Amino acid sequence: MKSVAVVLSGCGYLDGSEITEAVSCFIALAQTHAQFTVFAPDINFVGVNHNTGEPVPQSQRNCLEESARIARGKVLNLKTLDEKNFDALLFPGGSGTATHLSHWAHQGAKAQALPEIEHAILAFHKASKPIGAICIAPTLLALVLGSHHISVTIGNNKEISNEIKKTGAQHIDCPVDDFITDRLNKIVTTPAYMYDTDPAKVFKGINGLVKELVEMA
Amino acid sequence: MKSVAVVLSGCGYLDGSEITEAVSCFIALAQTHAQFTVFAPDINFVGVNHNTGEPVPQSQRNCLEESARIARGKVLNLKTLDEKNFDALLFPGGSGTATHLSHWAHQGAKAQALPEIEHAILAFHKASKPIGAICIAPTLLALVLGSHHISVTIGNNKEISNEIKKTGAQHIDCPVDDFITDRLNKIVTTPAYMYDTDPAKVFKGINGLVKELVEMA
Repeated sequence: MKSVAVVLSGCGYLDGSEITEAVSCFIALAQTHAQFTVFAPDINFVGVNHNTGEPVPQSQRNCLEESARIARGKVLNLKTLDEKNFDALLFPGGSGTATHLSHWAHQGAKAQALPEIEHAILAFHKASKPIGAICIAPTLLALVLGSHHISVTIGNNKEISNEIKKTGAQHIDCPVDDFITDRLNKIVTTPAYMYDTDPAKVFKGINGLVKELVEMA
Repeated sequence: MKSVAVVLSGCGYLDGSEITEAVSCFIALAQTHAQFTVFAPDINFVGVNHNTGEPVPQSQRNCLEESARIARGKVLNLKTLDEKNFDALLFPGGSGTATHLSHWAHQGAKAQALPEIEHAILAFHKASKPIGAICIAPTLLALVLGSHHISVTIGNNKEISNEIKKTGAQHIDCPVDDFITDRLNKIVTTPAYMYDTDPAKVFKGINGLVKELVEMA
């Protein structure tokens, strides 16, 4: 039975993990009979009202505690993630990925990933264990592994894909219900809610990615 | 194309809607090409830390705003739900169902459903439009339609199923990956996370329920 580390960044697409993407990962992992353990950083952030789209400065939330809403309580501190205990690494998307796990949202290709994220991605890549990333999360892989000229997709957004290319990574356009595999670097990516789309198409793309990830593990 | 009203009660199984159940509904509805509109009550509640399971009295949250995290912003006030605009009604589960949509969690069969919930369930039932309910949410149907001797399932929990029977409703035991149909009353129910189970089994049960619900609509 394969064991996958899943990294969340909160609960909600405007200030955390995209919920449908995270749940689609869990359903697909359970369907392949893979075990999974959920990690998140223990950091605070300002919540966003998802009904209005406005930040609520008095609403301080914690990334690990909010992630536990999706994972039903079983979330470990990202600092404790050890590549040796897992066969693969998986990042669902959501704005939290580009604000809490790196500062891509504000700095693009000049951003740095959180040290724990950089450490995890480098460790899995060095051990030749596959890494999956969804939606905006492939930017984390570009920031850390761009110099290895990895191939990723975030769909067909020109502005973001041009920024990704500045890291040295390749970008390949991809529809929502498909995924891109970089066999050499064992990296699988799918665009999901980078498109204005529906949950069934997001699930189809992620389902394909997860099955590929587990097969490569 | 069938149109389904989905009622949420927040975002997280300890103080709102169970997230995997809600997302499973959205994926399955999109797979059947049914349209759906999400409703939630505009009421405040005390948040629960999902990492520790402890209530956080200083964390006031709003049911509609938190529901918008799962639905990506598109949530309407439950007061505006009009049965005439929809072909079916669907309630995912989660503790919010038994604390915000009724007081079942504290009062059992003596509880009352929120007036808007009672109104919606009675209107869909009277119009012979199907109603689906997941996990603990069938208790809402028992509270409102128990006198019609409807048949529902919440899995195989003896304490809760005995409480359900006090409303006049019948309870039928059911495994997590199946569902129960009351054809006469057009009611479909599935236990989901009433069991300690995995996301793939929850998705299978809900997928079956949603397809049955849309077929009856």
